[in-house]
Amino acid sequence: MEKGILDAGQLSGDIQKLFGPNNLETSIFGTGKDAAMIHPAGQSNVIISNTLLLEGIDFDLVYFPLRYLGFKTISVGVADIVSMGGSPSHIRMSLGLSKRFQKADILTLMMGIKDACEYYGIDMMGVSVASSLTGLTLSSTTIGMANANEEIPQQAQKNDLICVTGDIGAAYMGLQLLVREKVAFSGTTDFAPDFSGREYLLQRQLKPIARLDILSALRQVGVRPTSIKTLKKGLATDLLDLLDSSEVGCRIYEQRLPIDYQTAAMAQDFGLHPTVTAMNGGDDYELLFTVPLGCKDLIDAQKEIHQIGFVTEKEDGCRLVSGGGNETDLERPTFLT
Amino acid sequence: MEKGILDAGQLSGDIQKLFGPNNLETSIFGTGKDAAMIHPAGQSNVIISNTLLLEGIDFDLVYFPLRYLGFKTISVGVADIVSMGGSPSHIRMSLGLSKRFQKADILTLMMGIKDACEYYGIDMMGVSVASSLTGLTLSSTTIGMANANEEIPQQAQKNDLICVTGDIGAAYMGLQLLVREKVAFSGTTDFAPDFSGREYLLQRQLKPIARLDILSALRQVGVRPTSIKTLKKGLATDLLDLLDSSEVGCRIYEQRLPIDYQTAAMAQDFGLHPTVTAMNGGDDYELLFTVPLGCKDLIDAQKEIHQIGFVTEKEDGCRLVSGGGNETDLERPTFLT
Repeated sequence: MEKGILDAGQLSGDIQKLFGPNNLETSIFGTGKDAAMIHPAGQSNVIISNTLLLEGIDFDLVYFPLRYLGFKTISVGVADIVSMGGSPSHIRMSLGLSKRFQKADILTLMMGIKDACEYYGIDMMGVSVASSLTGLTLSSTTIGMANANEEIPQQAQKNDLICVTGDIGAAYMGLQLLVREKVAFSGTTDFAPDFSGREYLLQRQLKPIARLDILSALRQVGVRPTSIKTLKKGLATDLLDLLDSSEVGCRIYEQRLPIDYQTAAMAQDFGLHPTVTAMNGGDDYELLFTVPLGCKDLIDAQKEIHQIGFVTEKEDGCRLVSGGGNETDLERPTFLT
Repeated sequence: MEKGILDAGQLSGDIQKLFGPNNLETSIFGTGKDAAMIHPAGQSNVIISNTLLLEGIDFDLVYFPLRYLGFKTISVGVADIVSMGGSPSHIRMSLGLSKRFQKADILTLMMGIKDACEYYGIDMMGVSVASSLTGLTLSSTTIGMANANEEIPQQAQKNDLICVTGDIGAAYMGLQLLVREKVAFSGTTDFAPDFSGREYLLQRQLKPIARLDILSALRQVGVRPTSIKTLKKGLATDLLDLLDSSEVGCRIYEQRLPIDYQTAAMAQDFGLHPTVTAMNGGDDYELLFTVPLGCKDLIDAQKEIHQIGFVTEKEDGCRLVSGGGNETDLERPTFLT
C-alpha cells in the first residue's frame, strides 16, 4: 500500500499539523497512526458514516475549487451524522492522489477541510495519503455522538407531517450552470466565467452546509422527528427511500415545495420546470424528516422548516399533488444527469 | 451523488441481506441508511479506521480473485483496529463501480467480505454503491472497541524488545510471482498459471489474516506492548514510522528476521536477497510491537512471536546488524515496486 508517492508519510504529517483539537473530552490523540481512538461521553451512541467522493463522478476540478471541495467533503459526512440524529465530532480520511497533484494543491484542499472542521467543531483524527491512477479520491469516515437515552428516529408513521428545511433544487441548478460554462470555456486556458447574480446557486453546489441547527431547534421545543434523511439524491429519490423503509406512502403538494427565486429563474433559462428541479435535483444537503401531526403548530413557528405533505398508508401510494389537484406517482429519476 | 448505476439502491439492499448480525449487544440496526449506529459497551474506547483500496494501485483484477479481494479488504481494516489494541466489531463500506462490473461480480466480492466478517466476528452495518469512472474503488470504515481502563500502547521505550509475528516478506514474493505470471500470460485469454508449491506465498498476498490472536495471548500472560503497528508498507518503513513517533532508535538483527523458506527460495529465483524482501516487502499484515525487556521470558514462550532487536536512544540511530556484525542504516525504500 501507499507506494508511488515518495513523501506520503511526510505529507500526512504536514497535513495533521494544520488541525487543532476541538473535542478534547472525547478525542484520544497520539495513539498511533493506523486509526482514530475516541472515548464516547457516558451514555452516548456512536454514529459512523463512510463517504466516498470520486473525481469525474462527484466533482469536476475544472470548476470545483479545491478549497470548496474540502469543505463540501466534510459537509457530506456531517450530513450523514445529522440524518441519524447525531452531532458530528470526529473525522478520519484517506486520499488517493494521482501524479498531477502538487503538495500545494493538497494543502489547499486541506484548508477547506480545516475550515469545515472548525465550522462544525469536529476533530481531524488523521489523513492517510496514497496513490491513485486516475484522479482525486476522497474517502472519509465521519463520527458523531447521540444521546443513548433519546429515542432514535426510525419509522415514519401514517399521518405524520413531511418536512424539508431551507430550499431545494438550487445545488442542481448551480451544477447545471457550472457545466454550461465549462462547455462554453472548453478549449480556452482559463475557466473564469461571470457568475454574478448566480452566487447563491453556486454556493449551494460548491459549499453546502449540513443542517446542524434544525435538530437542536426541534429538541428545544420538544419535537422528535419519527424519521430523518439528508437530501442528497434529490427529494423524490430520498423521500421514496425513506417511505419504503417505513412501509408507508405520501402526498406531497407541489405548491408547498420550497424553491428559491434564483433556482426558478435558472430552471426557466434551462427550459426545466422548477418542480422537476426541486424533486429530482440532488446535492441539497437539507433535511427531510417526518414529525407527528400533533407537532404542526410547533413546526409552523420554525422559519427554516417547510411542511410539504403528509404520510399515508402504503396502499395509498406515493403521489405529488399539483396546484390543480392532479396526482402523479413519485418516481426515482434514472436519466437526470 | 450515486448517479449512473440504475439499481444502486436495490444492489445495496441485496448486499445487506447477505449479512447476519454478529454483535447484537453493540449493533443498532434499522436506524436509517445514512450511517451506522453502535452502542459501545460500558467503559469502551471506540477505534475507527478508514481504508481506501484502489484498483490498479492496491490490486490488479487480472490476478486478484474478487472473493479474496473482499476478504483482504476486511483484513486490512481489521489490522488497523488490532494495531491500536482493539477488537474489531463493525464495518461500513462504500463501493465505486465502473460499468464493466456485473451484479454477479459484486456479489462475489461481497461473499469474500461476508467470509471475513464471519471469520473476524464483525457486523456489516451497510454498503453504499456508487459509480466510478475507472474501476473498482473500495472505501471502508472499520470500527473496534478497546477497554478504556487498559493502558493504550503509545510509545516505544529505550531497551524495549522489538517483536514481529509470523513471518515477513512472503506477501511481497507472492505479488512478484503474480505479476511475473501476468506478464507471461499477457495476450492470452486465460490467466491460469501453475502456482503449485507456491501456495503459501499466494495466500499471504491474496488472503492475509489480521492477527487477532496475538494481543489476547499477550494479555493472558500479562504482557502489555508499549507500541504496536501493523506491517503494511514493509518492516523498514513501518518500523521507522513507529520509532520516529516514539523518538527512539533501534538495532535489528538480520539473522533474527523470520523468513519462510518459500519466501527465501522465491527471492533467490528473482535475484533478490531475502533480507531485502523481508525488510522492504509490504502487505504482511503481521504485527510489529515493542514490549519491556523484562517480558523477555514470556515472549520467548510465544511460538508466533519473534524478537528481532531492541530499542535504543534516538541518537544511536536505526540500524540493521548483519551476521558479521556490520551495521547499516535502515531506510524507507522509495523505488521498490
